[in-house]
Amino acid sequence: MMIYADNAATTRVSDTALAAMLPCFQEQYGNPSSLHSVGQRAAEILTAARETVAEVLNCSPKEIYFTSGGSEADNQAILSAALLGAKKGKKHIISTAFEHHAVLHTLQKLEKEGYEVELLPVGSTGTVTAEQVKAAIRPDTALVTIMYANNEIGSVLPIAEIGAVCKEAGVLFHTDAVQAAGHLHIDVKAQNIDMLSLSGHKFHGPKGVGVLYARLGVRLANLIEGGAQEKGKRAGTENIPAIAGMAAALKEAADHIDENAAKVSALRDKLIDGLLKIPHSALNGDPVNRLPGNVNFCFEGIEGESLLLLLDAKGICASSGSACTSGSLDPSHVLLAIGRPHEVAHGSLRLSLCEDNTEEEVDYILEETPKIVEYLRNMSPMWKDLIAGKRQFIL
Amino acid sequence: MMIYADNAATTRVSDTALAAMLPCFQEQYGNPSSLHSVGQRAAEILTAARETVAEVLNCSPKEIYFTSGGSEADNQAILSAALLGAKKGKKHIISTAFEHHAVLHTLQKLEKEGYEVELLPVGSTGTVTAEQVKAAIRPDTALVTIMYANNEIGSVLPIAEIGAVCKEAGVLFHTDAVQAAGHLHIDVKAQNIDMLSLSGHKFHGPKGVGVLYARLGVRLANLIEGGAQEKGKRAGTENIPAIAGMAAALKEAADHIDENAAKVSALRDKLIDGLLKIPHSALNGDPVNRLPGNVNFCFEGIEGESLLLLLDAKGICASSGSACTSGSLDPSHVLLAIGRPHEVAHGSLRLSLCEDNTEEEVDYILEETPKIVEYLRNMSPMWKDLIAGKRQFIL
Repeated sequence: MMIYADNAATTRVSDTALAAMLPCFQEQYGNPSSLHSVGQRAAEILTAARETVAEVLNCSPKEIYFTSGGSEADNQAILSAALLGAKKGKKHIISTAFEHHAVLHTLQKLEKEGYEVELLPVGSTGTVTAEQVKAAIRPDTALVTIMYANNEIGSVLPIAEIGAVCKEAGVLFHTDAVQAAGHLHIDVKAQNIDMLSLSGHKFHGPKGVGVLYARLGVRLANLIEGGAQEKGKRAGTENIPAIAGMAAALKEAADHIDENAAKVSALRDKLIDGLLKIPHSALNGDPVNRLPGNVNFCFEGIEGESLLLLLDAKGICASSGSACTSGSLDPSHVLLAIGRPHEVAHGSLRLSLCEDNTEEEVDYILEETPKIVEYLRNMSPMWKDLIAGKRQFIL
Repeated sequence: MMIYADNAATTRVSDTALAAMLPCFQEQYGNPSSLHSVGQRAAEILTAARETVAEVLNCSPKEIYFTSGGSEADNQAILSAALLGAKKGKKHIISTAFEHHAVLHTLQKLEKEGYEVELLPVGSTGTVTAEQVKAAIRPDTALVTIMYANNEIGSVLPIAEIGAVCKEAGVLFHTDAVQAAGHLHIDVKAQNIDMLSLSGHKFHGPKGVGVLYARLGVRLANLIEGGAQEKGKRAGTENIPAIAGMAAALKEAADHIDENAAKVSALRDKLIDGLLKIPHSALNGDPVNRLPGNVNFCFEGIEGESLLLLLDAKGICASSGSACTSGSLDPSHVLLAIGRPHEVAHGSLRLSLCEDNTEEEVDYILEETPKIVEYLRNMSPMWKDLIAGKRQFIL
């Protein structure tokens, strides 16, 4: 049995997405900037993909910029807003403590360049309120950048409320929607989102492609200079197969969003209920406002990495948190941000489900995980100290 | 008949490249940062691709950074060198007047930030000598960035000689090898290249992926901040299918490089000889040191765009120059750089061949092109002035 429960890290490309991509490799392989018919057929695919993405997000195709992925889109959005702000003497940026590193590291770069970055605390369930944002906005605030849903613990943030606050204050609002797109309803107009990033491979589209939505009137700065592609704002030959695949995957996800969410959140809830039976465990993230597929736990007294390896040996693919920071010995900055102490944050497990997962798979995970946790605890010096009363239980 | 003669704009993905990509969409679809077996299989594909590319370029896999394409690689290389230089008080950059816009526009950005950019003239055949470079190097030179081969007129530059001059002077040397990779022998060690950019889709690999080679010891600056991918120098989930496809295409090209060059340059020379019979025409670029597949002509008295559209109507896909700047009304900066006057530069045609083209196709192009040129000239007011002696012929 092989159970892929790491869909927040990346997803399998769907048949629909692959079918949209395949003709672009050897048949419609032109460069959309070329005037000849092979190029113009590629340009038509590009136009159609842009229209599809715009329709899903409820914006104009003119507001869609294709990038190489979510990280690039995050970087470009934030740097653009920072430059726009600086021109008006505004160098204050509001974000949260548990953003993806594509946001946090870009903000750190800006701090070195003289910007003031304010990271809002996210509380024990991992969220921020519109009131927090409102209270933080100053006359010199250039940007609010707050993620739509957290990649590790799955909390879904009150984006429409934050958007309304930003609109009222006249402050640009960017949201990293990499984990939300394809899984949650997005309407950039209704939610007053000025800029939004998404990534193809998080909803069964291909890797290496993403979208930066930027509302008309928001002047983007280039991250990549060169040719005049993407209205001069993103140079480089357009990645037509990936763009077509991403658009097809996004449309497929949007067309089935409620039905998928219902199915996946039922699996998620079964998994959460089952794992909560393991003693000294705790769910991370908001129990209610939560991505349909996200399950994230801390198990006291064990190391997350060992847990992953033993789950893998049983055919269960999971994660301790963000794939982007695996290999790092530091505990997740997200778990620290919601107040988990280091020793607990080290024992984390993220299972991220999608509509391809089944109830049988959830049953199997629920059968194997408690056994592995128990096995690891029996070998753990920390656990021995805990049950001997030499250390106090936290969970 | 459909003849694709725009291989400098983009190429058809080869069967070999596609075969390397296909398993990565639905089988080996993991995120290489994930610890589980699906992720680790993706990591193995990534490692193997890096080794393949390194072997072709004659460098260490540690010196290979995967990017979203040639433009990104050019941007990152130049910005990295500029930052390194600035730390030592060196803000002078040497390049040429006919680089790709990914280089030129990045240099323009740096000029606004206080760097001094010196663009060497490229003469009538479109090249620079190592002596020119040597003469231009100053104590405060941070970088020499000179393309390996020109994308429009196909001139191949004396990269090894330039590399030797830069090494002797202790100046970083970057080359945009987007048009050369897969078509010309590259050996970064023997040629003393410190940084090199290439793009997958120019040699029958996929779009949306490229390589930045940076010699060990050259500290890259990030263009895209975020996760710790690519040794922390290029954030974003690695585009495994495209990376695998590019590596396979590069190896295939390298394995057949001499045989392809012989075949393609014979086709090229036949095409050049045939087109030279058209009166008042001229070959652009170096007649000898030339990319195997590049044919670039100016035809006096016509507009390149009309020529392209009529060729397309006959099933011949060609270009007037760079695909990246098509749609622009300005004449090619490359043709202006080699001294073609505006009125002649407007009448340019680039036919770029690959090993999939045939002699029959060349014959067909040679049959149709003179007829179309004549037809357009008969309609052209400029041509009427030329033959009436009201204007002097340039070519």
